[in-house]
Amino acid sequence: MSTRLESQEQLAADISVTGVGMTRFSNEDERSLLELLTVAADRALKDAAASSESIDSLHVGNAAAEAFNGQSGLSNALASQMGITDADTKRIENTSASGASAFLDAVDAIRAGSSETALIVGGEKMSAADTATSTEIISRITHDTEYAQGVTLPSFAGLAADRYLRTYDADREDLAQVNVKNHANAAQNPYAQFNKQVTVNDVLESPAVASPLRLYDCCPTSDGAAAAVITANGGSVQIAACESAVGTHAVADRSDPLMIESVRQAGKSAYTIADVMPSDLDVACIHDAFSILEWLEVEELGLAEYGEAWRLTVDGTTARNGEFPINPGGGLKARGHPLGATGISQIVELVWQLRGDAPNNRAVDGAELGLAINVAGFGNSSVCTILRGDFT
Amino acid sequence: MSTRLESQEQLAADISVTGVGMTRFSNEDERSLLELLTVAADRALKDAAASSESIDSLHVGNAAAEAFNGQSGLSNALASQMGITDADTKRIENTSASGASAFLDAVDAIRAGSSETALIVGGEKMSAADTATSTEIISRITHDTEYAQGVTLPSFAGLAADRYLRTYDADREDLAQVNVKNHANAAQNPYAQFNKQVTVNDVLESPAVASPLRLYDCCPTSDGAAAAVITANGGSVQIAACESAVGTHAVADRSDPLMIESVRQAGKSAYTIADVMPSDLDVACIHDAFSILEWLEVEELGLAEYGEAWRLTVDGTTARNGEFPINPGGGLKARGHPLGATGISQIVELVWQLRGDAPNNRAVDGAELGLAINVAGFGNSSVCTILRGDFT
Repeated sequence: MSTRLESQEQLAADISVTGVGMTRFSNEDERSLLELLTVAADRALKDAAASSESIDSLHVGNAAAEAFNGQSGLSNALASQMGITDADTKRIENTSASGASAFLDAVDAIRAGSSETALIVGGEKMSAADTATSTEIISRITHDTEYAQGVTLPSFAGLAADRYLRTYDADREDLAQVNVKNHANAAQNPYAQFNKQVTVNDVLESPAVASPLRLYDCCPTSDGAAAAVITANGGSVQIAACESAVGTHAVADRSDPLMIESVRQAGKSAYTIADVMPSDLDVACIHDAFSILEWLEVEELGLAEYGEAWRLTVDGTTARNGEFPINPGGGLKARGHPLGATGISQIVELVWQLRGDAPNNRAVDGAELGLAINVAGFGNSSVCTILRGDFT
Repeated sequence: MSTRLESQEQLAADISVTGVGMTRFSNEDERSLLELLTVAADRALKDAAASSESIDSLHVGNAAAEAFNGQSGLSNALASQMGITDADTKRIENTSASGASAFLDAVDAIRAGSSETALIVGGEKMSAADTATSTEIISRITHDTEYAQGVTLPSFAGLAADRYLRTYDADREDLAQVNVKNHANAAQNPYAQFNKQVTVNDVLESPAVASPLRLYDCCPTSDGAAAAVITANGGSVQIAACESAVGTHAVADRSDPLMIESVRQAGKSAYTIADVMPSDLDVACIHDAFSILEWLEVEELGLAEYGEAWRLTVDGTTARNGEFPINPGGGLKARGHPLGATGISQIVELVWQLRGDAPNNRAVDGAELGLAINVAGFGNSSVCTILRGDFT
């Protein structure tokens, strides 16, 4: 880790995001995965005022195109579709953090001097797979021994939620507020899968999934794509840090089941490189694949003490108009969670917020420093990105 | 491209391969994909005298674990299996060039200063998939329009072979010599899938696949893994260059169906960065997924004039004891082609040859400079690596 830190502190500040774009997320997009990627990529290029010809490297974030869509060779197919030539092309897979891992891959390509202008495109079309296939693929993200015991990602989340609610002062209604908040934000976001608000009662009355979690505590399966253009040559949103960490694969191997070490480590590295404190942040996109994860990650990132994150939800601190808005775009819960797109869609949202591009009804006023955390599986690895708006 | 060249010329020479290892390739390995990867990785670490703890980044090359094996999150699973913590972990997919793309990804991580010691592990377990699944996944590497017309990778190769034999002075028997040579090399390689020699007659009498190509002109489906450790801190085999290029996806869009632009471009960049001429090379690993590809790539890499590569096979130049041995390990044809492993297995073979580790019956005497070319699909993109043995 010391190697990374020493060598990257100077470098990170010189790389910026010059353009972003995404498709609307949904669960029934009629476009192919390749079409979704192309739409998002075209929007990011247009936003960056960049041409396909200017792209030195193409980093595609995608979890399971072969299994979900019978699509192979995604990066070359996209390059061809977009007229990208004379570039390094590859796909990056890191399950539900494929998007942020692709973003980190692009940052490294620029740090390496291998690329001056990189295009990152993340996407997934999950609706194309039958439920048995997608359930199996997603369940197999867990460690073999836990998979063999029938533990799935929702059940890990259910166990963690149960323990959190027993250990700390929060109750089931408080946890529902995470989803109420994120749905309220998504209701103002035309790119979100769900544009409807929900109430605490809606959450509590939704079908049980993994006790105490119910359907409205869980992200949906989604279709969608998001893209970003980054460059070493200046831009209005700086990449202050982009750092990853790997955690224990088997949840049973963790000293405390409420701790997600990879989130803590990735966050710690990112703060060091960006030279900021958690309290400096103005806005964050947190990987809320399940409601409980928003609290656990907020605590691991030092944004609240252990056992205290729930208060920030309940007292409105993390609402869009609160002191420290979390998931102003609706989060994975309500914006949607097309696996490979999610990490990039967090970047897209932060860039919109930092540039002041978000419309009034969902803008975070005066945001200058934003954080995104994208998590693979139930914390198998994590990528933390800190972006800084440059208003000088 | 100029960006890459300028910034990388100095950097490349400082990165070296310090350890390599692989499993035997076969078409019926009983070990799981994860076990195969672990065995290869352990061998590379042992060869490098490195520990899991020293690894700063893990780059897994794999084409289709979800579809072939129902295995998700390969990079985190491998990290956990090997006790790798405090590292960046990701999987790189670039169809049949996933291995070399992962190698390039690692080189970039070191160039970026993000990693001092990187472990690259490529693998595939193709025997686990039913034929319909694997055929579909591999067929979908081609461009959508060509896939829709029923053109597959073997039929592209058949069309190219037919045209080559009609255009130039080579005949069908000459082409069979590629396979005879590669099988003869594999017969001495305990890691190869096929240890049997074949004759020209065996090739010509094998079942037709895509006229004029027959079964023995085509690589098999394979199980296996290969791994390498690279570092910025010196070692006996330098990475003189590792460069990629993307080509046209649809073969119909190419000005000449016998030209594979991505191979030419990747080779050209690699020669420039390594500051070598094709004639300086002592040995090469060429992506012979089909016999005809060995000739086409030899020509694109400037190792023979267009229409002349066949003479190097027929006159014995490219035999193991010839002036310029090609595929001393047996190539994709006879060593086998587990998609994600192939690019790394080429690196493994070159390192063994450059260090003088290959046993007498398959050593290339005095080899100091070796090239590997790994191709995605039918030239959709390519990665060219040049390694230099350091005997100073």
